[in-house]
Amino acid sequence: MQHSGSFKARGAANLAVAHIEDGTMADRGVVIASGGNAGLACAWAAQATGTRAAVFLPQTAPAFKVAKLRSYGADVQLVGREYADALDASIQYANRTGALLSHAYDNPLIAAGAGTLTAEIIAAQPVDTVIVAVGGGGLLSGTIAAVEGSGIRVVAVEPERCRALNAALEAGGPLDVAVDSIAAASLGARRCSQMAYELALRPEVASVLVSDRAIASARQTLWGSRRLVVELGGATALAALLSGAYSPAPRERVVVVLCGANTDPGSLVS
Amino acid sequence: MQHSGSFKARGAANLAVAHIEDGTMADRGVVIASGGNAGLACAWAAQATGTRAAVFLPQTAPAFKVAKLRSYGADVQLVGREYADALDASIQYANRTGALLSHAYDNPLIAAGAGTLTAEIIAAQPVDTVIVAVGGGGLLSGTIAAVEGSGIRVVAVEPERCRALNAALEAGGPLDVAVDSIAAASLGARRCSQMAYELALRPEVASVLVSDRAIASARQTLWGSRRLVVELGGATALAALLSGAYSPAPRERVVVVLCGANTDPGSLVS
Repeated sequence: MQHSGSFKARGAANLAVAHIEDGTMADRGVVIASGGNAGLACAWAAQATGTRAAVFLPQTAPAFKVAKLRSYGADVQLVGREYADALDASIQYANRTGALLSHAYDNPLIAAGAGTLTAEIIAAQPVDTVIVAVGGGGLLSGTIAAVEGSGIRVVAVEPERCRALNAALEAGGPLDVAVDSIAAASLGARRCSQMAYELALRPEVASVLVSDRAIASARQTLWGSRRLVVELGGATALAALLSGAYSPAPRERVVVVLCGANTDPGSLVS
Repeated sequence: MQHSGSFKARGAANLAVAHIEDGTMADRGVVIASGGNAGLACAWAAQATGTRAAVFLPQTAPAFKVAKLRSYGADVQLVGREYADALDASIQYANRTGALLSHAYDNPLIAAGAGTLTAEIIAAQPVDTVIVAVGGGGLLSGTIAAVEGSGIRVVAVEPERCRALNAALEAGGPLDVAVDSIAAASLGARRCSQMAYELALRPEVASVLVSDRAIASARQTLWGSRRLVVELGGATALAALLSGAYSPAPRERVVVVLCGANTDPGSLVS
């Protein structure tokens, strides 16, 4: 229910405001290559802060994504056939125009913005544990920062076949992983950020994995029993609880972050 | 996000608890003829209070409705080809077994239960106006009772072609109306209750109408901009605000009740 349909609005807004305040945004605006939640959030944040956003996508991007980005006032540029082409073009655009190149998650301002949701949660009610899904680690980094010194536990959940953080913790540092999960559209980072890896080494952080089946089931359960529609990545944190990948103690007060809902609701069973 | 997918869980629970407390429920349970929100709420409330519910439907009822009712532990009875057949059978069942015959809205316990949502809203925040959709008038009656003495205005919204309350106010008393609206599945009462009519005569209550087009548009807007899925009846109150059928004054604090979400999410545009 957040602006732009995912938690990423918070990071994008924080990035925009910080650069407006320090005078480095000027009227060059911001540029990103993303047709997903990061691109939507970037476009929304630019409109909300009165700046400009250029969003690069491959020419194969679905029309409804382009329309949604344009509804936020973004300058949508369709380049090449694959995401890598759009990314290259966005970098050239930044170099040529001086626009601020935005990253989806590996930026302290983006992570800090995401972490405001955890700060709000723990200010609103007593919490023992916060469960969040992990893609590249922006939300996780912000969440770990937000709970610092509070004694609150953080559970970092990834799909079994899309485990950039879990693999980094096993290997002793970030490395590229294979990405093959139904939640890859929002959680499919090939590599977690160094920042997320280092923060996740803290003793209050646990890394757990869930199956694609558990993710789909959690999403359907949320609709069936609570009338909430979330995307697969948004259901991944809940899947850890429902599948038993994380088992809270009796009376443990657990908050599950449903981090996004940019999804086709038609894929749910009535 | 309420139990059973609509506000009706509150009225059904209040009815069940009241009859358990005064000893008139016994083990005969409750019976209702409804495949919609009232039936779901009745089945849910019976399960939640440890009593029995028999739910009568025509044999033409969709399998998913039957399955959902059975998932709440209801004894589902399929009788005849039309709703009237199921209603007759439910009355015979009540007479034969002594089960409590539940009405969807024309019962003070049902209305009072529904009104608890308004009591919760006005306890939580300062409110000038509460906007609710009207079918038979249960939620409206409970809402008017809940705001009594507070100075809060109540706006009663109905589809243009499904206007049992609006027509009653015009005619000087409840009367049968034609029912032909996309929101008829949840708001399609032929006649409002005498209780709702009398309460709606109070000066703090306004009756407004909205078109089917405005209802469908409000439902899509809720999904598009807030990622909330509601049924057409659940979007009807919001339609009054978005279409201008009700225009709040500057700084007027308005609460819109989204009263149900038992709907096929596949009918929404991504």
